[in-house]
Amino acid sequence: MIESAAIIGLGLIGGSVARDLAARGVRVFAWDRDLASVRAAVDEGLAHPLAAGLDGLPEVDAIVIAVPVLAAGDVLRAIAHGRRDVRLITDVGSTKRSIVHLAESLGLGARFVGSHPLAGDHRSGWTASRQGLFEDARIFLTPTAATEPDAMHLACEMWMGLGGRPEVTDPDLHDVQLAWTSHLPQVVSTALALAIQQTGTPRSTLGAGGRDVTRLAGSSPEMWADILVDNADEVGSALAAMSSYLSAIGDAVASGDRDGLRELWAAANQWHAEHP
Amino acid sequence: MIESAAIIGLGLIGGSVARDLAARGVRVFAWDRDLASVRAAVDEGLAHPLAAGLDGLPEVDAIVIAVPVLAAGDVLRAIAHGRRDVRLITDVGSTKRSIVHLAESLGLGARFVGSHPLAGDHRSGWTASRQGLFEDARIFLTPTAATEPDAMHLACEMWMGLGGRPEVTDPDLHDVQLAWTSHLPQVVSTALALAIQQTGTPRSTLGAGGRDVTRLAGSSPEMWADILVDNADEVGSALAAMSSYLSAIGDAVASGDRDGLRELWAAANQWHAEHP
Repeated sequence: MIESAAIIGLGLIGGSVARDLAARGVRVFAWDRDLASVRAAVDEGLAHPLAAGLDGLPEVDAIVIAVPVLAAGDVLRAIAHGRRDVRLITDVGSTKRSIVHLAESLGLGARFVGSHPLAGDHRSGWTASRQGLFEDARIFLTPTAATEPDAMHLACEMWMGLGGRPEVTDPDLHDVQLAWTSHLPQVVSTALALAIQQTGTPRSTLGAGGRDVTRLAGSSPEMWADILVDNADEVGSALAAMSSYLSAIGDAVASGDRDGLRELWAAANQWHAEHP
Repeated sequence: MIESAAIIGLGLIGGSVARDLAARGVRVFAWDRDLASVRAAVDEGLAHPLAAGLDGLPEVDAIVIAVPVLAAGDVLRAIAHGRRDVRLITDVGSTKRSIVHLAESLGLGARFVGSHPLAGDHRSGWTASRQGLFEDARIFLTPTAATEPDAMHLACEMWMGLGGRPEVTDPDLHDVQLAWTSHLPQVVSTALALAIQQTGTPRSTLGAGGRDVTRLAGSSPEMWADILVDNADEVGSALAAMSSYLSAIGDAVASGDRDGLRELWAAANQWHAEHP
């Protein structure tokens, strides 16, 4: 049972974790590079400020790193030199391979479990955070090679307490899968927005379908630059496949190949129908 | 005021037009290559069957062609040789240039107005049709060079009676704009679905964002093969722009250019924020 936690980063995910833990009676300490977010959390009675920053972490059961993926590595390095009595160190990043391997190489493997809550949307920041964000959300948990049962147990318990559904998976496999199910859709939605934007066409002229496809174009630049660079190889493979399907469709359109187009659409229909 | 209408094609759009017109007391005649749809419409008391097909069209105020875009040309040719006492001939296709020019060349320009209701979603067919589909929907109306005021008036009156908001526009301009706001999103969503599908990843493993971006992959193969081929040049230009943004993002990812990625995402954010 977690009785105290330090939340590093009060964005959509970190802020929502802070709100949920505080609501369950956990003593929450919070830090963010944006002092206004910390002040807001303190003013709402949700958290105590970490006045001395990462160097002055109090004794807590768990540390939750909720900053963009590449910055999470810096936080992990900073706390590796500090308190070692913490029972659980976790993060909430959308990539898991590099942070898990870093935790291992820093000697934090026993108490580290990577977390990736499949929650949130294109909104970001403290003002988007809310209680109940993880209700019924899938939470990928990626242990290190050395994670101890106590840390794993605490991670499961924490996320289940927040309403999430933990699924333990391998960090490398996680990053391969997410390249297709999350990172590629994000890139595609953003590239589409940019292509439409350069014609001077406002988003308000799109129909409901076009708005759906471009919805992720509202996502955080900081967060996504980090995720994509951290998962560059897998994202590159996914992008190559996407480009090749776009080319195939473009060729069929240019040559008036209606049969070919119908076959491609029928295949996409079949995939869509499995979970409409 | 339209008192009678023939609806050719009882899919999502044609079926919904038939339902709405019948509900307003208009005498509706219906035809579809799928006799089961006609029978369903007749059984529901919404329409009378066109027993003799297009050759035996009764005297009606308006003919609404609601079949896929390229088939609409065949229907227009068939009725050009038949009754010429109809006051309004319109279609509901997603491309307008070719059908408007065909109407002109068939000598039907005076009574033809192209229509494109921006309604419906990825579902299709009579079973998806419903009353009220056009409530508050934008309806693009594209006259020919020779459309007479009576035909234009009837078209506006008909769509407004169905709850739509008519906007008169040029058919060529319409097809250029829709290539970006509708046809490109459709192609992108389908290509993304195909790219994910070939990895064996089911749609159920996607988060809410990925499901949004792939939603249009459930759209009708027949309808979209026709639309894309009919608007091939404009769709080709849009696809080229899309591919070039995907390449730019791919290059930035491969070289670890986080600043470049943040700039691209920030630009997409700005466009998205105009109509979030």
